[in-house]
Amino acid sequence: MERIPVIEIFGPTIQGEGMVIGQKTMFVRTAGCDYRCRWCDSSFTWDGSAKHEVEWLTPEQIWQQLKQLGDDRFGHVTISGGNPALLKGLSALVTHLKEKGVRIGLETQGSVWHDSFDDIDDLTISPKPPSSNMETNFATLDMIMDRLATHRGRVSLKVVVFNDQDFSYATYVHQRYPSVPFYVQVGNDHIHEADDVTLRLNLLQKLEWLVEQVIQSKHMNDVCVLPQLHTLLWGNRRGV
Amino acid sequence: MERIPVIEIFGPTIQGEGMVIGQKTMFVRTAGCDYRCRWCDSSFTWDGSAKHEVEWLTPEQIWQQLKQLGDDRFGHVTISGGNPALLKGLSALVTHLKEKGVRIGLETQGSVWHDSFDDIDDLTISPKPPSSNMETNFATLDMIMDRLATHRGRVSLKVVVFNDQDFSYATYVHQRYPSVPFYVQVGNDHIHEADDVTLRLNLLQKLEWLVEQVIQSKHMNDVCVLPQLHTLLWGNRRGV
Ligand code: SF4
Ligand code: SF4
Repeated sequence: MERIPVIEIFGPTIQGEGMVIGQKTMFVRTAGCDYRCRWCDSSFTWDGSAKHEVEWLTPEQIWQQLKQLGDDRFGHVTISGGNPALLKGLSALVTHLKEKGVRIGLETQGSVWHDSFDDIDDLTISPKPPSSNMETNFATLDMIMDRLATHRGRVSLKVVVFNDQDFSYATYVHQRYPSVPFYVQVGNDHIHEADDVTLRLNLLQKLEWLVEQVIQSKHMNDVCVLPQLHTLLWGNRRGV
Repeated sequence: MERIPVIEIFGPTIQGEGMVIGQKTMFVRTAGCDYRCRWCDSSFTWDGSAKHEVEWLTPEQIWQQLKQLGDDRFGHVTISGGNPALLKGLSALVTHLKEKGVRIGLETQGSVWHDSFDDIDDLTISPKPPSSNMETNFATLDMIMDRLATHRGRVSLKVVVFNDQDFSYATYVHQRYPSVPFYVQVGNDHIHEADDVTLRLNLLQKLEWLVEQVIQSKHMNDVCVLPQLHTLLWGNRRGV
């Protein structure tokens, strides 16, 4: 049975981001990423700091942990990372969860295709802007968006924006794939801020800035601007 | 030419609520409501306090004002109230806006049907919970939800929740129409609070409470929990 490196399973909670914002869900966070974003808020999935927490689990073991935590109080599971698209074992997990009758959300930066994308109900592709220090391979992203054009679930693009340059990048991505629902999200560059009030007010201030950018741009008429709801609610804590 | 009583036109801004949260949009707020919710945050649309602001406008006049404010910086218009479904002239406005090529959102409490619902892209039905002091006519709501079953746009239900009793009501509504995307939203009972920081933290605290209710309920597995984004951003100010 194919195993997957899992770094945490938690919930029920609500989705904090993008197209599925507010959705009640469970989280399965997988280990490993092909990126090294400067402001990564899940660097523990790849920087070795939580190495001892990684468990290689079968789909049925993951399901058992989800049931133990969520019992009959969930119907949606989000697979996040790291980059879950790197994992060969992902297909087995997705098939197993589908058999159990839950809906599945998945987020990935769009650096690699995975056949299991076809079976994801809520798929978010989140290419990374310049402030991440990563470079988008648009040939790969084109191929992925092309294959997703006939997707039977919900697909969206989401770009985190920290500054003007990121906003230009977001505008470019939106114009390159104009028919795909598009979300811009405020970046959290206070990932070590422990004081929740400071963090909340700071994020809302940035949200106001981002809303203003979108309002002023004639290229961003059909987009959504959102905060990270979970950060507004729970600050930088893990596992909520 | 059929005229509509309009109390304010503003934007571009973002949608603060429900299925279209974060969406860049213009607002057309119509006057008049058949309800008198205890905590109505738009009571100026029906209590006479803004009577002098009401203008009876033709669809083309409304369009001209939208263009003047939004120029080429919008592609989505939200019609809100009051209850826009009361207005005979609504069809002419909706047809006019469609001809101009914008997408249209509309929110109503579901107390009356309007044929123009069929042409709304993002339709939110928002029945009012017990704390409003209003009573839902479920025969009417059943009829409306039935007619919307074959709607070609996006339809959702949204219930504002202030307390336990409201949450039970929300659960009941969700179970009555289980296939319709369902949103619960934190109520703002500080509609006269002028201090934004107090208001923001208070709303986030309530959101935390509402999330907890949803997490604990096995009847609310497939719902979204959301704040009013515009209240978090701009407090109780009008016209943003
Ligand atoms: S792609 Fe995501 S998980 Fe990977 S480094 Fe960037 S932010 Fe972190
Ligand atoms: S239905 Fe809406 S506009 Fe009418 S009284 Fe209630 S909250 Fe106010």
